[in-house]
Order: sequence, then C-alpha cells, then structure tokens
Amino acid sequence: MKRPFCHLFEGLSEIQFERLDTLMEDISVKEGERLFREGEVAEQLYCIKQGAVEMLTSIDDQIELPIAILRAEGGYLGMSSLVPPYIYSLSARSYEDSILTVIKRSRLMEQVKDDPEMGYFIMSNLAKTFLDRLKETRQEVKIHFKTLFKVMQF
Amino acid sequence: MKRPFCHLFEGLSEIQFERLDTLMEDISVKEGERLFREGEVAEQLYCIKQGAVEMLTSIDDQIELPIAILRAEGGYLGMSSLVPPYIYSLSARSYEDSILTVIKRSRLMEQVKDDPEMGYFIMSNLAKTFLDRLKETRQEVKIHFKTLFKVMQF
Repeated sequence: MKRPFCHLFEGLSEIQFERLDTLMEDISVKEGERLFREGEVAEQLYCIKQGAVEMLTSIDDQIELPIAILRAEGGYLGMSSLVPPYIYSLSARSYEDSILTVIKRSRLMEQVKDDPEMGYFIMSNLAKTFLDRLKETRQEVKIHFKTLFKVMQF
Repeated sequence: MKRPFCHLFEGLSEIQFERLDTLMEDISVKEGERLFREGEVAEQLYCIKQGAVEMLTSIDDQIELPIAILRAEGGYLGMSSLVPPYIYSLSARSYEDSILTVIKRSRLMEQVKDDPEMGYFIMSNLAKTFLDRLKETRQEVKIHFKTLFKVMQF
C-alpha cells in the first residue's frame, strides 16, 4: 500500500508508521459524495491520498457556507474524532473523485495507549493544524470588522 | 505552593504534577499590564491562578479588538508557545490585578522528552482548547454572514 502523506503523522518513526499502516483502509469516493455531517458522532478521520474534499458549515436549513477545500499531499479531516466530545464540527463532501485513507479513532487510541510518544506526536500535529485554522478564521473576523469600521466612517 | 487548576494539565497523575510544580513560578501583575504582544516570540505560557486576562488582536495601528477574557479556575494563555513557529497569535493584557503561574516552554519540553505520556496529555488538552476556540470563532463568522444575508434580502 502506498503510504499517504498526512500532516497528522509527521515526525513518526518508520516503526510507528508501520504499526499505523495496519489500521488504515483506503476508500474511493465520487465527486459530491458526503463523508459526514456537522453534528454527527465523529468516529474516524480521513487522510486525502488523491483528490480533494470540501469542508462546509450550515448557516441555516437552506444555506451551507464553504470553509475550505483540502487536498492530497498532507490534507486530513475529521479532526474532531480525536477530541472530546467527538462530534464533527463541520460537514465534508468529496470535491472531486478521490481516494481517502480512513482511520478509526478506537483503533488509533489502542495504539497510542501502548505508545504514548506516538500520541504526543499526533496530538502536537493536531494542535498545530487547529491553531493554523484558528488564525485563518480570526483573519476572516478581522476582515469583517475592518469592513464594518470603513462603513461606519462614511 | 497552591497548585493552580489549569485545563492544560487535566489528566496528569500526581507524580507528573509534582514534576511540573518544580518548573512553575508565580508572578503578580497589575490591571492593564501587558504580558505579551501578537507577533512576539512565544517562550512561555501562563495559567491564571487569580484574576483575569484579556486577549486582543490588532485590527490596524490604532484599533485593538478584544477576543476573550480568560479567568482563573482553568484559564491559560500563551498557547502558541507550545506550537511551531512559536509566535504569539494574540496580545494579552491583565484585566484586573492577577496572579499568574508562568511555565517556560524550554523547561516543559525537557520534561516531555523524559515523559511522552505527559506530552500526550498536555497536547490533547491543548488541541481541545484550540478546537473550542475555533468553534467559537466560526460562530462569529456565521453571525456576520447571517447579518449579510439579511441585509441582501432587503
């Protein structure tokens, strides 16, 4: 199996990666296919091996707001599956025909119990991804405020 | 020394906490005092033992936008000190006279090297805090969009 490059697993040793390999399963998804919805119980995470996935959030019953398009070569999603209360905070839809590597939280956590260093690396990478997203999202809020201030100055 | 309750250290064993204790130092800060500024190198994190700290971000040279007020009984800041590139992503200012417990990243990382399980717990707690902040910030973006949609419907 070709190993997926996934930012979540950066820093792991060859042996740790081999152990992870046994937990992973590849799936093919068609363009437009739903992977999960915001608010559902988050049991698994996905590394993008090939293709792209769109992340969305519901504004109301009718409107979904696109948040990001994640691509192969590092992209991963379903991060809420690793953090209590384990509820997906966004929806995910395949943006094009894609191949995803799926990992169940329960199986990953068994590994981490035996190898806390692996857990340390994974959680450090996860924290970094969350911080990067947080900074991007704060930038959006800033842009809204800047616009508001400009409008108020007229 | 009275142990600070800090969400970052939840789940640690008594022995792990005792080892951490030796790395911590309490400081007193006056209302309005700057702890760090957005963009500065992030070398240490702070648990709030008593009082409150305001987090802010610069909109431009003149305007700072308040992001949150963090309080004792769990609140901590300077989270960017644990994640590359180790640059504070917000500014912090004491909101009232406060007592803070300071921990240097370099000393914490030495401990984590010897005890990866401690690192796993800390990074898991950190990831949870980032995800919570990310959800709050996304809610703000949603409110902006909802307002925008309403305006457009008129």
